[in-house]
Amino acid sequence: MVNLEDIKYFKSLLGEDRVLTGDEINEDFSHDELGGVSKMPEVLLEVQNTEEISKVMKYAYEKGIPVVPRGSGTGLVGASVPMLGGIMLNMSSMNKILELDEENLTLTVEPGVLLMEIGKFVEAHDLFYPPDPGEKSATIGGNISTNAGGMRAVKYGVTRDYVRGLEVVLPNGEVLNLGGKVVKNSSGYSIKDLICGSEGTLAIITKAILKLLPLPKKTISLLVPFKDLDTAISTVPKIIKSKAIPTAIEFMQREVILSAEEYLGKKFPDNSADAYLLLSFDGNSKEDVEKDYGKVAEICLNEGALDVYIVDTDERKEAVWNARGAFLEAVKASTTEMDECDVVVPRNKVAEFIKYTNELQNKFNIRIRSFGHAGDGNLHVYILKDDLNKEEWNNKLEEIFKSMYSKSMGLNGLVSGEHGIGFAKKKYLFNQYGEEYISLMKNIKKAFDPKNILNPQKVCE
Amino acid sequence: MVNLEDIKYFKSLLGEDRVLTGDEINEDFSHDELGGVSKMPEVLLEVQNTEEISKVMKYAYEKGIPVVPRGSGTGLVGASVPMLGGIMLNMSSMNKILELDEENLTLTVEPGVLLMEIGKFVEAHDLFYPPDPGEKSATIGGNISTNAGGMRAVKYGVTRDYVRGLEVVLPNGEVLNLGGKVVKNSSGYSIKDLICGSEGTLAIITKAILKLLPLPKKTISLLVPFKDLDTAISTVPKIIKSKAIPTAIEFMQREVILSAEEYLGKKFPDNSADAYLLLSFDGNSKEDVEKDYGKVAEICLNEGALDVYIVDTDERKEAVWNARGAFLEAVKASTTEMDECDVVVPRNKVAEFIKYTNELQNKFNIRIRSFGHAGDGNLHVYILKDDLNKEEWNNKLEEIFKSMYSKSMGLNGLVSGEHGIGFAKKKYLFNQYGEEYISLMKNIKKAFDPKNILNPQKVCE
Repeated sequence: MVNLEDIKYFKSLLGEDRVLTGDEINEDFSHDELGGVSKMPEVLLEVQNTEEISKVMKYAYEKGIPVVPRGSGTGLVGASVPMLGGIMLNMSSMNKILELDEENLTLTVEPGVLLMEIGKFVEAHDLFYPPDPGEKSATIGGNISTNAGGMRAVKYGVTRDYVRGLEVVLPNGEVLNLGGKVVKNSSGYSIKDLICGSEGTLAIITKAILKLLPLPKKTISLLVPFKDLDTAISTVPKIIKSKAIPTAIEFMQREVILSAEEYLGKKFPDNSADAYLLLSFDGNSKEDVEKDYGKVAEICLNEGALDVYIVDTDERKEAVWNARGAFLEAVKASTTEMDECDVVVPRNKVAEFIKYTNELQNKFNIRIRSFGHAGDGNLHVYILKDDLNKEEWNNKLEEIFKSMYSKSMGLNGLVSGEHGIGFAKKKYLFNQYGEEYISLMKNIKKAFDPKNILNPQKVCE
Repeated sequence: MVNLEDIKYFKSLLGEDRVLTGDEINEDFSHDELGGVSKMPEVLLEVQNTEEISKVMKYAYEKGIPVVPRGSGTGLVGASVPMLGGIMLNMSSMNKILELDEENLTLTVEPGVLLMEIGKFVEAHDLFYPPDPGEKSATIGGNISTNAGGMRAVKYGVTRDYVRGLEVVLPNGEVLNLGGKVVKNSSGYSIKDLICGSEGTLAIITKAILKLLPLPKKTISLLVPFKDLDTAISTVPKIIKSKAIPTAIEFMQREVILSAEEYLGKKFPDNSADAYLLLSFDGNSKEDVEKDYGKVAEICLNEGALDVYIVDTDERKEAVWNARGAFLEAVKASTTEMDECDVVVPRNKVAEFIKYTNELQNKFNIRIRSFGHAGDGNLHVYILKDDLNKEEWNNKLEEIFKSMYSKSMGLNGLVSGEHGIGFAKKKYLFNQYGEEYISLMKNIKKAFDPKNILNPQKVCE
C-alpha cells in the first residue's frame, strides 16, 4: 500500500535517515512481547516532533494509508502490530521531559519517555508518579494508551488518574490540546479520558501533562507466608474491609518464585511456604506506616498466615521486589511459548478465580502460572506451551481462554485489567460486551477516524 | 411535538399518575438554579426504573421526540432545560441506595439519590465518599453528569475518580453496563469516563457504582486571615509546593462573608480581615494532621497571614463551613439577578485571574463577587445585576464574560471547572476549542445519538 511516491514524500519531510523500509527495519518492530501476532510495517518513520506527525497523518489520511504508533513494544496483546502493514511511527525519539512545574505539581513529557525515567526524575525532586506497572521500560505513551495499572493501584489508582492533559494528533493530522494543568475540568466531553486506554486507535499522543504527588517519606513491605494460595488470597477482602490502605497487595506462589530464582540466579529471602502475600505501605512517618501494617499483620495471622516478615532493609526490599518484577520474564523463560489472561474481577472474587484456573490446569494437563494484584482484583494468568505441538497448543489454549473469560464474566469481571485488548483479545471483548456495546465503540472509532487508518483491526474493529 | 397518541402510550406504560402535562407540570421543571434559560417540557414522566426508561427511549427514538433527564435541577448552566420541549424524565424517584459492598468498598446507587444522603449513609459505616460539591441536594446522577468537583478535589480528585461503574440507557433504548466493581479496566474505550461530564447528552444514567474510601478519623480546619485577597491567594502555590496535602483550600472575601452573615443571620467567627483562606486537613491521627497543618500555618505566617485560627470545635467548624456553604445562596439573595463564571486555571494563576476580575468590576462599574477553590484553581465569579436595566445588564454581562473567558484562555484555563457547559456556556466553549475540537465532539454525540433526541442543544450542539 505504501508506494515509492509516498517514500519520497516521507524522505522529503524527515530526511533519508529517518525513513526505513524493507530490510532496514528491525524485525522487532513486527511484534510486541507476547501478542502472538506479527507483521512488518512497510515503512518505519523515526518521528521527532508533533509537527512531523501531523504532516505524516495529513498525508496518510488523504492517501488512506494505515498508520500505527509504537513506543517500546512491551505490549502483551499485539496492539502495536501493524496488521495491514503501512506506516509505523517510532515514537521512541520523542523522549524528552519537558517541564516540571512544582507550583502545579505537574510533569510535562513527550510520549517516548520511559516509565523508569519518570520515576527517577520526579523522585530526585521529592515527588511521586504513583502508577507502577511492572514493565519499567515501557513508554509513558504506551502506558497511557493501555491505561496501565500496576501494583500501587490499590491505594493510588491507575494511569488515567494521573493524566491531566494531552496533546494529540488526530487521524486527519489536526492537533488538539485536551485538558491541561488544571485540576478540575467539566468543559465538554472528556476526550482526554477516552484517549487514555484507546490503544493508539483514536489519536496519537504527542505530549502528556502528568499529575504528581509529594513523595511518601516512608515505605515498608510485608512478606506474609501462607500454607496455600487460597488461604492467602481469601485474606485480602478482610484487609480491604478493615479499612487499612496498603499501597499494594501482590500474591505469589512457590512455583513462580522458583522460576524467578532461577531466572535471576538469586535466592528469594524465604522458602518456608507455598504461597505469599507481598504487601507494601507508605506514609509520611514511621508511626503512620507502622500503625497501618500492624493492623494488617494481625489480620493475616488471624487468617492463618504462618508468619509476617517485615521487609525494611534496602537489601531485603530489593530481593523481594526484584523477584516480583522478574515474574513475567521468568515464567516466559521457563517455557517454549505462552499466552496470558489479564482479567480483572471484584477483589473478593480473586480466590474463586484462581481456584478455577487450578482446576483448568488439572483438567487440561497443562502448566498454568499466575501472579498479580490481589489487592485490586487484576490477575495475570499464564498458560504455558512447554512441549505441546502447535495444534494441541492452539486447541487447548482456545478452550482454556474460553473457560477463563467466561468464568470472569460470571464473576462480574472484565476482559482486561491493564494490558488492553489490542488484536489478541478482541474475541473475548466482543463476546462479553455484545453487539450494541461494540457497535457503539465502532461509532466512536468512526467519530475520530472515519477512514479507519489509525491502528486498524484493534480493540473494536 | 408530543401528541395525544404519545401521551396515551406513556400512560399505558407508567399509569395515569406518573404522566404530567400542561398545568400539571410545576414551573420549576422549566429551569435550573441559574442558567438564564427556561422552557417547559411538553410532558413530564415520573420514571421509576431502568426498564421504563428503556421503553420510553425506544419510543422517543422511533418518533424522534426530544428527551431530557432531570435530577434536582440544581445546575447553573441550563443543562437540564428542555430547549425543544418534548419529554422530561424526572429521575428523582429513582432514589434508592442499592448496595454497600464493604469487601470491595463500593456503593451502588440509583441516580436520584442526593449527595447529602450518600455522605450520611457511608459515614455511618465509617466510610467516605470524597467528592464534596457545595450543593448537597444535588442528585448523584447530576453530579456524575457534570463531573462535579467540590472542595476536597485538592486532595481527593473529582466525581469521575469515584465512579467505578455505570448502568446507562442509550438514546435508542438499549441498556449498557459500563465498568463495574473492578478497580482497573483496560477493556475497550472507556465509555464510562465519557459519560461522566457529558451533561445528559449521550446516555441516561440509571445506576452508579461508586468507589468509597475509609473515613479519615480526624479532620481539622484552619481559618487564616490576610490583609488582602492577593496576599492570601498568592500563598496557595507555596503551600502546594511545600508538599503538604490539604483536603481543601478555599478563599473568601469580606464582602461575601458579610452577605453570608446576613443571609444566615449568624456571625462569622472572625471579622479582623478583608480576606481569608480556609483550609482543611484530614488523616488518621491527631499527630498526622497536626504535622501537616503546622507546616502550612508556618508558610501562611511567613507569607503575611495576620493570624492562624485552628477550627477544631464542632461549633466553630459549623459556623465557618456553614458560611462557606451559604455563599452561593447569600450572593444570590443580595441582588436581583446574577450570572456566573466557573473557570478553572492552573493553581498558580488564581491570583492573577482574581486581580483581573477586580479590574473588570471597576471598569464596568458593577458588583462582582467571587469565592471558590483556591487549592484547585476553580473559581466561582458572580456578576450581579443589582439595579441595572435589562439592556444594560445584558450588554455589560456579555462584555464581562468575553473578557473573563478570554483572560482564562490566556492563562491556559478552561471554561468550566465543575458546573459544566449546558446551554449557557456553549459560546465560550466553542470560542476556546475551535472548529476541529467541537466537530469531534459533535461526531461523538452522533455516535451515541444519531437522531439527536437526547438533551438537544447542549454542550457541543
